[in-house]
Amino acid sequence: MDRLMKRLMYVLLFVLLAGTVYAQQAKYVFYFIGDGMGVNQVNGTEMYLAEQEGRIGVKPLLFTTFPVAGMATTFSATNSVTDSSAAGTALATGAKTYNGAIGMDDDKNVLQTVAEKAKKAGKKVGVTTSVSVDHATPAAFYAHQPNRNMYYEIALDLPKAGFDFYAGGGFLKPTTTADKQEAPSIFPIIEEAGYTIARGLDEYKAKAGDAKKMVLIQKEGAEPSCLPYAIDRQEGDLTLAEITESAISFLTKGNKKGFFLMVEGGKIDWACHGNDPATAFEEVIDMDNAIKVAYEFYKKHPKETLIVVTADHETGGIGLGTSKYELHLKSLMNQKQSQDLLSRSITDLRKMRKVINWEEIKDFLGEKMGFWKELPVTWEQEKMLRDAYEESFVNKHVVFEESLYAKTEPLAVAAKKVMSQIAMVGWTSGNHTAGYVPVFAVGAGSKLFMGKMDNTEIPKRIAKAAGYK
Amino acid sequence: MDRLMKRLMYVLLFVLLAGTVYAQQAKYVFYFIGDGMGVNQVNGTEMYLAEQEGRIGVKPLLFTTFPVAGMATTFSATNSVTDSSAAGTALATGAKTYNGAIGMDDDKNVLQTVAEKAKKAGKKVGVTTSVSVDHATPAAFYAHQPNRNMYYEIALDLPKAGFDFYAGGGFLKPTTTADKQEAPSIFPIIEEAGYTIARGLDEYKAKAGDAKKMVLIQKEGAEPSCLPYAIDRQEGDLTLAEITESAISFLTKGNKKGFFLMVEGGKIDWACHGNDPATAFEEVIDMDNAIKVAYEFYKKHPKETLIVVTADHETGGIGLGTSKYELHLKSLMNQKQSQDLLSRSITDLRKMRKVINWEEIKDFLGEKMGFWKELPVTWEQEKMLRDAYEESFVNKHVVFEESLYAKTEPLAVAAKKVMSQIAMVGWTSGNHTAGYVPVFAVGAGSKLFMGKMDNTEIPKRIAKAAGYK
Repeated sequence: MDRLMKRLMYVLLFVLLAGTVYAQQAKYVFYFIGDGMGVNQVNGTEMYLAEQEGRIGVKPLLFTTFPVAGMATTFSATNSVTDSSAAGTALATGAKTYNGAIGMDDDKNVLQTVAEKAKKAGKKVGVTTSVSVDHATPAAFYAHQPNRNMYYEIALDLPKAGFDFYAGGGFLKPTTTADKQEAPSIFPIIEEAGYTIARGLDEYKAKAGDAKKMVLIQKEGAEPSCLPYAIDRQEGDLTLAEITESAISFLTKGNKKGFFLMVEGGKIDWACHGNDPATAFEEVIDMDNAIKVAYEFYKKHPKETLIVVTADHETGGIGLGTSKYELHLKSLMNQKQSQDLLSRSITDLRKMRKVINWEEIKDFLGEKMGFWKELPVTWEQEKMLRDAYEESFVNKHVVFEESLYAKTEPLAVAAKKVMSQIAMVGWTSGNHTAGYVPVFAVGAGSKLFMGKMDNTEIPKRIAKAAGYK
Repeated sequence: MDRLMKRLMYVLLFVLLAGTVYAQQAKYVFYFIGDGMGVNQVNGTEMYLAEQEGRIGVKPLLFTTFPVAGMATTFSATNSVTDSSAAGTALATGAKTYNGAIGMDDDKNVLQTVAEKAKKAGKKVGVTTSVSVDHATPAAFYAHQPNRNMYYEIALDLPKAGFDFYAGGGFLKPTTTADKQEAPSIFPIIEEAGYTIARGLDEYKAKAGDAKKMVLIQKEGAEPSCLPYAIDRQEGDLTLAEITESAISFLTKGNKKGFFLMVEGGKIDWACHGNDPATAFEEVIDMDNAIKVAYEFYKKHPKETLIVVTADHETGGIGLGTSKYELHLKSLMNQKQSQDLLSRSITDLRKMRKVINWEEIKDFLGEKMGFWKELPVTWEQEKMLRDAYEESFVNKHVVFEESLYAKTEPLAVAAKKVMSQIAMVGWTSGNHTAGYVPVFAVGAGSKLFMGKMDNTEIPKRIAKAAGYK
């Protein structure tokens, strides 16, 4: 009897201890940040996916099925509505700061980031994004600069941080300082610090084996500011899923101590600044594809892996409904490309011939957006398109709409407005809002992410889950 | 040593068993439903409260501090954007149905509600609201009718359900059937079924002791459709907190078997249909005050009480930001009453004298909304107000804006638009949207509410937590 009891007690003790251990050890940490991905960007994407199947409801993305789901507030120290640098700093360091700051507090003191803590704890560290490597969100994890626009100075902080793997579209100002002086290119500086720079996936694969540290960017000649939108992707374009895959393979190479990897889906924000729902939802799906790569890793190491998915702020004030008790998200499938590319095609069209008549424009918009062909257009909407055409094509008076990341042809502006109206998606802003962002988590320590929280809590809880000091 | 081990083992066994028991027994269930309370109605309220203290950020409501916080989808069987009856039915029965249905499925079969299950399990049951007792949300818990507008027939289902406590503003059609026939008053019918009808809190207090079952409505003469908005409340008006308190006292009277209580904050929705942010936020605060009453009860019975707070759908597509990286929610404090009352005052003003000049209107709006006095008004905004004044006061051409629950004077419409602009709150709809609603939970079984879920999951999880079959 006594022996049986002893044995039983050991079993119980083991159960209790195991429970405790599971809750604390995140040897591998994935930290996904959907820039601009408020809660309803996620919900809208899932409803869009369901409508693609011809039904009402949601078709879940992988990350929304994670066992822990909550939401976070995002305001900065100075603004109810944060920018990406203050939000990135909050998500990286656990501290509120002013809009514009990168890894610095209100008094411009350097803040320690969760990535730096991971490195100190002996982990390999990766910082990756679908926009430029020196952009606000990734920068907040490795750089410390008073202003997000100091791209050159931010890039110089990259080798200083000494992380193992960086990836993104490229660098915005590789040879120009914040005060607009020409300066030595950051590329040799980064290489001299021990990094291999791989341009494109093939080069990465060829060089990864021998490389000690890695910076993976797009092929020579690509637009360095970002990867193309998922909706515009061409064969051979670098993707966020490929970046994630490369990061995992690089960070696990000969490494038994675990890793910390931040992956930013940076262009959800850009699409939402443009109030372009099809492009935004496709970007969310694209980030989910990168998360799937992480999840495959998680499945191999379920007790030691933590995946956290969140966002830095909401962009656009997206509303899933405009008046009736309906959505027509399926309409968005008729949109063939982002509003950026549509705008460029319109510029090309405008410059192609002196006279383009309205019937040609109707065909063009039918082709690109489904208007008149698959999607009926009301008289109000036709007027909006026609007015833009008359002003820019006939009167040759072209005033581009300038948003944070795009300059858009008047006709493309009208087209995207009409598309949102047809889909019954509303927007309250061309910039960010203070709306909740989601927090999803699975794996080791994921229960720490229960409940509503402030964004500053997230890196603290990651550090706790992973045992970083 | 052996004795010590034995003792230790008992302790461990107790801990494990206790953990299991805590997770299963919700003897007392509170189910709060904020009608129209999407996630950002909550976030907006907390940011409004912080701005009242002169700071950026959030001042937490009680219910957002609950340990479990997530979100739910709300689409109905027939519509991406649900109405309150299909959503109420989902929250009451766990089944999707068509917009308009009350406690019935798509084929008009009767669905069992979680309140009916609670009664079957021997619990006392209460169904309460701040709107009329026969309104969609409360009706979905006790009635079974093919259409939400069948108010008389819904009221007749109230004694049939046989629950112990009902409360709300009153009844919308106590003597008129759905096909517009005069019919016997529901009040004696309800009384004959064993109910005491208390009109007002004093009457409730006088009658509660002897009453077997109770229907608590407002005093004779009050508008039966709802309690007044919190922002418009006068001394002596019945409140949702008082209803909650009365429900608890009634349902615990001589009862050792526990209870199930649904409390609806019904007018968050109404204020958001009107795109009236100050009134909406004050309604959210008011529901939180009712939740505080439940929480006091929870603190006395923490191991046996479950509180779930959610919503049936989002209303208005509220966006916390319109362009700049700011909010000016503090401005809303200058609004003295709901847009409904403002509209009524404007009607009175219009009818008072033949000529009311613009300066008088400016004084009036300064008094009621703070315009020009505390809140600077742009020329665009002044024009909007002045245009509405010229059209309705000078030209005597008055076209009321008709929304679901209000007819609003043109000048009041302009005033509320200006107020939203000043506060930097945007709206995408005058009706519901498909935006996420929040789910907050504390107490016995609250962990069942982790993760993103569909609204149909909520009553199922409540039944599981409470052991209802």
